[in-house]
Amino acid sequence: MSPVPNDIAVLGIGNALVDVISQESDDLVDRLGLSKGAMQLIDEARMAELYSEMGPGLETSGGSAANTMAGLASLGVSAHYIGRAKDDQLGRVFAHDIRSIGVGWTQELAADGPATGCCLVLVTPDAQRTMNTFLGASALLHPDDVDPDLVASAGIVYLEGYLFDRPEAQDAFRAASAAAHDAGRRVALTLSDTFCVERHRDAFRELVEDHVDVLFANEAEILALYEIDDVEEAAGIAAKSTPIVVVTRSERGAIVRADGEYVSVPAEPVDEVVDTTGAGDQFAAGFLAGLSEGLPLERCARMGAIAASEVISHIGPRPQADLRRLVDERLGGT
Amino acid sequence: MSPVPNDIAVLGIGNALVDVISQESDDLVDRLGLSKGAMQLIDEARMAELYSEMGPGLETSGGSAANTMAGLASLGVSAHYIGRAKDDQLGRVFAHDIRSIGVGWTQELAADGPATGCCLVLVTPDAQRTMNTFLGASALLHPDDVDPDLVASAGIVYLEGYLFDRPEAQDAFRAASAAAHDAGRRVALTLSDTFCVERHRDAFRELVEDHVDVLFANEAEILALYEIDDVEEAAGIAAKSTPIVVVTRSERGAIVRADGEYVSVPAEPVDEVVDTTGAGDQFAAGFLAGLSEGLPLERCARMGAIAASEVISHIGPRPQADLRRLVDERLGGT
Repeated sequence: MSPVPNDIAVLGIGNALVDVISQESDDLVDRLGLSKGAMQLIDEARMAELYSEMGPGLETSGGSAANTMAGLASLGVSAHYIGRAKDDQLGRVFAHDIRSIGVGWTQELAADGPATGCCLVLVTPDAQRTMNTFLGASALLHPDDVDPDLVASAGIVYLEGYLFDRPEAQDAFRAASAAAHDAGRRVALTLSDTFCVERHRDAFRELVEDHVDVLFANEAEILALYEIDDVEEAAGIAAKSTPIVVVTRSERGAIVRADGEYVSVPAEPVDEVVDTTGAGDQFAAGFLAGLSEGLPLERCARMGAIAASEVISHIGPRPQADLRRLVDERLGGT
Repeated sequence: MSPVPNDIAVLGIGNALVDVISQESDDLVDRLGLSKGAMQLIDEARMAELYSEMGPGLETSGGSAANTMAGLASLGVSAHYIGRAKDDQLGRVFAHDIRSIGVGWTQELAADGPATGCCLVLVTPDAQRTMNTFLGASALLHPDDVDPDLVASAGIVYLEGYLFDRPEAQDAFRAASAAAHDAGRRVALTLSDTFCVERHRDAFRELVEDHVDVLFANEAEILALYEIDDVEEAAGIAAKSTPIVVVTRSERGAIVRADGEYVSVPAEPVDEVVDTTGAGDQFAAGFLAGLSEGLPLERCARMGAIAASEVISHIGPRPQADLRRLVDERLGGT
């Protein structure tokens, strides 16, 4: 693996969302009939219902792939993002935030159509997050939004599994994947969520087998993909077709399988786990940063673990510290 | 002082604002020509300019008097709020948050007119906050928004000095003060900001002399009010006409002068000062909570110091911990 010579190291495509984060009790999560730790899609009526039951919130830009691009920018890696938001207050917040951290974003905010999407995030005392997503404008992501030249200019195109919840977005996903491979680039995918995998298992299996070069999943997601109960076995199945398979394991770190290589890294220690929102997104950011710099897989994984440890130490899904400095402090400069 | 027997212990009137908080360098604050630690009013064009220079933000409901009402609710004291916001995304966030914490709010969101006001808050590494307020809808607060029956039913009406930046809001302020005194209630005022005092010094002096029963100020504000350089002397001047004068002194605690009484309390120790936004607002909340419960002034001031210490330990201007429990732990139950 050699360093990516392009202007854009990683291009992320995903649902552009503003997160509304509140700290809530387990009781409330139960009473609202939510599945703790998962993401579910909701309509506007359900959003209003859930929001009315939630305590005061912090609003902050989110969206899984967008969070990963934010992490890459914090690591000094050039990142670009494609996602749809409306020209409303939250859309302008999203656009401001992604640009202000140095991530490329060239789309116009939509003048009409549904409001900018949002995700109601309930953080329980165990730091788990339960997410309820109203897709809004983000659901209208369309193959036309994916500029093939942009894709071709990026070393890696990174896609979130959440995109599979809308057929047009699936098409955008496939268009991006085709453009990347035509240009000899790599396609990375994160499975995003167990329920998301269950909703689209066949499509995901086909993708992983035929189109994905770098797969990110947590244990529950990769088990759900193959409907088995052994993580090593599941990673092995994925690795038969996919050059790099990364499985994150929360406090037990992560494993990587690639071309006969097997790497296992521990989780980075943290003083206090405050909010696990964004942990997987930031692991992917650290790993992709290393990959785009041509670093050994073990170092990529350790960079992922360091990025994840930062984001779970505070409320919100994007880094607040300078991740590059953090990585240099912990691993030494490259 | 006897406990207030009413349904509403404290009614706050102020500018309804959503805060956009970001962590920034001293260099940026300098380069943007901002006066560190102060609040300035800005128009939409300047807001767009400043916002484009700021890093990623956290959006959270704010507004000085609204923050104080949030603190009172966290202390289990019944609070109500009057302020204007528009029926837009940020206005709905504001309305959600203030209701979700149990503060009464009976106004409709405005169907048209300017957008919900916001305050760009730049937090520097020394935890100081520099605020830039676009008043938006909040500036249209009008005497008609102040229901005299509501004022008459509240033990204390609490007003923020920031209201003085708009003539209609000044009128609303005077209407509230008159309704309170007609009903035999108390009027509390916070001076809010040194520059605000300088902009309206004569009006403030007249108010403090003739209408205010409980005055809150920090050292710089009370010195600016009387254009002298001795805090004790300034507090003494105010105390000649005002029954209770509270001067907060950051890490040196606070002093209270009232009817010949003199109380001084230390600041509550904190592990780390992260963001001083809301420190004065929460001091006022703690103090007013004690006052509305008829507690001795020293205890009121200590409650203020405890509430302030909580809010400066995290990003955001409203309490995240249960302030009543915190007060009970530190001072013992009443």
